[in-house]
Amino acid sequence: MYFRILEDLERNGRQVISSAMLAKLGGTNSAQVRKDLSYFGNFGKRGRGYSVADLKETLRGILGLNRSWRVVLVGAGQLGSALFSYKDFNKHGFHVVAILDVDPAKVGKTWDGVTIRAFDKCEQVVRESGAEVAVIVTPSEAAQSAVDRLAKAGVRGFLNFAPCKLTVPESATVRNVNITIELEGLSYALQG
Amino acid sequence: MYFRILEDLERNGRQVISSAMLAKLGGTNSAQVRKDLSYFGNFGKRGRGYSVADLKETLRGILGLNRSWRVVLVGAGQLGSALFSYKDFNKHGFHVVAILDVDPAKVGKTWDGVTIRAFDKCEQVVRESGAEVAVIVTPSEAAQSAVDRLAKAGVRGFLNFAPCKLTVPESATVRNVNITIELEGLSYALQG
Repeated sequence: MYFRILEDLERNGRQVISSAMLAKLGGTNSAQVRKDLSYFGNFGKRGRGYSVADLKETLRGILGLNRSWRVVLVGAGQLGSALFSYKDFNKHGFHVVAILDVDPAKVGKTWDGVTIRAFDKCEQVVRESGAEVAVIVTPSEAAQSAVDRLAKAGVRGFLNFAPCKLTVPESATVRNVNITIELEGLSYALQG
Repeated sequence: MYFRILEDLERNGRQVISSAMLAKLGGTNSAQVRKDLSYFGNFGKRGRGYSVADLKETLRGILGLNRSWRVVLVGAGQLGSALFSYKDFNKHGFHVVAILDVDPAKVGKTWDGVTIRAFDKCEQVVRESGAEVAVIVTPSEAAQSAVDRLAKAGVRGFLNFAPCKLTVPESATVRNVNITIELEGLSYALQG
């Protein structure tokens, strides 16, 4: 959240920011801001505020956003296709180097130079492409078994768009983008 | 979460489910399950479990999923296009009846019978289409001003895909699908 606020501030030409102002923009309080940021090191000077550019770059490093990640996209449907071209992926250092699908009609096609491969060859594809991260855009019922095979093949980060809970080995990480849960929440709020 | 578990169970032919089993599938405990469900009324019989079909249908009603919502899609880019065809939207009763974009090159085109209209006509489009819900797929910097106009025009539910915090009137609801936050979280976890 701080990183995104700082990006906005920099775009708007702001150079220095107080913890009080950061707190206001983040919907928190300045004690919390100082605590959050001190967790990562000693930023800012009392009474002088933070340098927007310096703090942003430090947070970028902490978040791992100056790194680049090789991504395998699992599921070459419409949502998969949109994510393949989603600019925020590249901006965050996530680069799709391989695409997998179970549909023989899709296998062999290429998206912007990346060939869609048969999911059944996933171990080989992970090995050859060096993918460390998988973006899961399969139907729910296929997601867990896909994750199991990919984790075994060496993938250690999963971004899950399937509306289901996934289990990964302790050494791996899964983050969920749950459109369905938000839809249901919205529906519930609207009818109240 | 319960609704989704019950959907899965029904697909797999299960007719009755105990609170203990529901708890296990939901990653909680059976006291919590009974408490959650009793909040909505008196389901199930002690020692006999819940009828999967009945409980699912009751939850569907509670969640408002047996209702239909008219949706205006704001932003006709690639992610917007994927969401337009996203089956879960229709499955949850969300039907896109209007599309808005600021790009004159897109205005006038139709997606599956729905014409893309100029964002500047949003008040008229909301009135004519009867849209109650807006799906926001604009760039961050355009999202808040779009929401302000749409809320004023009568939209009371917002599903936000832009990576920014949105403010809505008290009478309206916003739910966020924040792909960017999940990417940053994944990146942070991976480099650890």
